Amino acid sequence: MTTEQLISEIHKKKSFLCIGLDVDLNKIPSFLLEKEDPIFEFNKAIIDATHHLCVAYKPNTAFYEAYGIKGWKALKRTIEYINTNHPEIFTIADAKRGDIGNTSTMYAKAFFKDLAFDSVTVAPYMGKDSVEPFLAFDNKHTILLALTSNKGAFDFQTKEVQNKEVYKQVLETSKSWHNSENLMYVVGATKAEYLADIRTIVPSSFLLVPGVGAQGGNLQDVCKYGMNDSVGLLINSSRGIIYASSGKDFAEASANKALELQQQMAKEL
Amino acid sequence: MTTEQLISEIHKKKSFLCIGLDVDLNKIPSFLLEKEDPIFEFNKAIIDATHHLCVAYKPNTAFYEAYGIKGWKALKRTIEYINTNHPEIFTIADAKRGDIGNTSTMYAKAFFKDLAFDSVTVAPYMGKDSVEPFLAFDNKHTILLALTSNKGAFDFQTKEVQNKEVYKQVLETSKSWHNSENLMYVVGATKAEYLADIRTIVPSSFLLVPGVGAQGGNLQDVCKYGMNDSVGLLINSSRGIIYASSGKDFAEASANKALELQQQMAKEL
Repeated sequence: MTTEQLISEIHKKKSFLCIGLDVDLNKIPSFLLEKEDPIFEFNKAIIDATHHLCVAYKPNTAFYEAYGIKGWKALKRTIEYINTNHPEIFTIADAKRGDIGNTSTMYAKAFFKDLAFDSVTVAPYMGKDSVEPFLAFDNKHTILLALTSNKGAFDFQTKEVQNKEVYKQVLETSKSWHNSENLMYVVGATKAEYLADIRTIVPSSFLLVPGVGAQGGNLQDVCKYGMNDSVGLLINSSRGIIYASSGKDFAEASANKALELQQQMAKEL
Repeated sequence: MTTEQLISEIHKKKSFLCIGLDVDLNKIPSFLLEKEDPIFEFNKAIIDATHHLCVAYKPNTAFYEAYGIKGWKALKRTIEYINTNHPEIFTIADAKRGDIGNTSTMYAKAFFKDLAFDSVTVAPYMGKDSVEPFLAFDNKHTILLALTSNKGAFDFQTKEVQNKEVYKQVLETSKSWHNSENLMYVVGATKAEYLADIRTIVPSSFLLVPGVGAQGGNLQDVCKYGMNDSVGLLINSSRGIIYASSGKDFAEASANKALELQQQMAKEL
């Protein structure tokens, strides 16, 4: 998917909501556990109930890998279901990968070719030659971790290097990489006040913003400091939406939560 | 596996060799492609030919994920084959994972429980709460990226933060994390001269050293600067061993290459 198509969808749906499909079998409604593929059944119900309210889905691969081959099969069925029924929706493999050059190419093939995601999250620690193999794919997007939403972000990301924090170095340096127009960045909503500074470094890039809802980030603040002329934001909510109810009405409850966020977003556009 | 068991194996085999099982279907002998599971068949042959010469096997997950579900099945068969036939061998999932707390727990389950690896490589960018969930598992080891073997290591890892390079901050800071005795570190052989400094920060930790062979690192230099009283080194070779021949004799050729390295290691012990 091109960035222009994503922006067009945002305006059509009046939404820049991304829904995180982080399926934990201990949290989904218990009646689903009797099904042959409870992970996929849960995702399918959530997607059927929310696809008109969001512009992106983001399965975090950890939740699938934890269930072994069964989990990977459910991930593949989920992405195929989205790509077949809702090809207009931007898909993010939240995988936080990154390795030396030829190995990153294998990861890129896994997520862009085998699973056919539109984008993948990548960790920057190993530098340029660990990220460029992802950037080499046309109309695929690499979402680089910049400033994450967790406490541990203060361990290294916010430390100063030559009078500039590590996460700012990551933003700055990555702009010079080959095909850097395919980059987006992860910036946690729990650190909304940092967004103004971030926008001076990457004014036009899309930012994927986790941490609204369960982690405590505030939607209005994120928009105030992070929105640009092309919107430039994908705001993710996972647990706050998908676990809105653990009863038979879980899909309807998730749609209600998604609608709340979509309505707040419509006001910001 | 405990660290003591690993050290005992090193002395028994006079080897601290780790073999990287990075299977690329474009590089393995073509006659294997006719088999139902060529990835596993290749690994099985390499393991059968080399298990007496090495103390660790390290499949890099990228090479398996690139082949989708077929790849994950081959990874599972490979680790099960090692654990069943050679339980004395230390196993490393080279996965370079890392995410916010509850998500890292899911990754830890994937590699320590579902796949039953002894250890997993983890990226430090997201800090303490992204690594501690891995450290919580008894007799399992978390191998943190410190200074990697690629060029991109100079993009961020060697930049100075408060008069100390980022990778040294990672080493230093990680020592204060809960269950830090379960930590090992990745230090590239291409940067052997850095090992003396690294040993002043983590004198007793095991270091996993990739980059000997194909990437140009030198075994003697790594031992000179990196070895400690308990050896403290696992030196990895992947392509240099497993792709020693593309003919029918590939397993024998890999054993010859492994033997060369093992003999050099025996001299260093």
